[in-house]
Amino acid sequence: MPPSTRRGARIAHVGIAVRAIDELVPFYRELLGLDDHPLADSDGARIAGFAAEDSLVELLEPSVADSPISRFIDRRGPGIHHICFAVHDLDDTLARCRAKGITLIDDTPRMGAEGKRIAFLHPASTGGVLIELTED
Amino acid sequence: MPPSTRRGARIAHVGIAVRAIDELVPFYRELLGLDDHPLADSDGARIAGFAAEDSLVELLEPSVADSPISRFIDRRGPGIHHICFAVHDLDDTLARCRAKGITLIDDTPRMGAEGKRIAFLHPASTGGVLIELTED
Repeated sequence: MPPSTRRGARIAHVGIAVRAIDELVPFYRELLGLDDHPLADSDGARIAGFAAEDSLVELLEPSVADSPISRFIDRRGPGIHHICFAVHDLDDTLARCRAKGITLIDDTPRMGAEGKRIAFLHPASTGGVLIELTED
Repeated sequence: MPPSTRRGARIAHVGIAVRAIDELVPFYRELLGLDDHPLADSDGARIAGFAAEDSLVELLEPSVADSPISRFIDRRGPGIHHICFAVHDLDDTLARCRAKGITLIDDTPRMGAEGKRIAFLHPASTGGVLIELTED
């Protein structure tokens, strides 16, 4: 399908690694005025979700030692961890990424914190940005 | 004004520090299907904008040595640099941030790449995340 007939992706969420969710809740809830959006824990992290119109902010606090988020914080400190784009055909997008030589962390989609199929791309293939893809 | 009567912020854009815009354009344009959204250069960086529904992805390539983006890449490598939230009253939000002890990088708003008033908050006050605020 040529790009002109395919709808573009949207930002589904931005994942932020935090040492303690409670310290950041006042900023996102009160100062930015975002509404709580409950999410299940995932990948050894407790997650606080906030709705920012059609996107989410996800605060990711390690609940397990040696989890991806705890290792990220140990290495780089707290901060923006990943960005998730929602695409309209996840399998097709992953196949096209693979064909362009992008390394997939998840070779096949798995279930994410929002109860949708997701897959991560390796940041070495995407300019240092950890990118998650999910399906709308 | 209590939070319940104030509309929440939205993600205006995510700013990504890149060594070379041209290397990343195929990923955002062809694989994610995002449309080009031309933006002016800003803060010593060339900017390639891509529209992701109501948000933008901004690829920021240093055009000047010792600019904020070149220093970020020197220190941490390329990757997600900042997140910009659009709020409905920038001056009021900045005043409330200041009252909560958040350090402002820009004490008073200045013009950003999208031709709107913007101000940055210091990441030491926001869990390691460089946050830009702009006005809808």
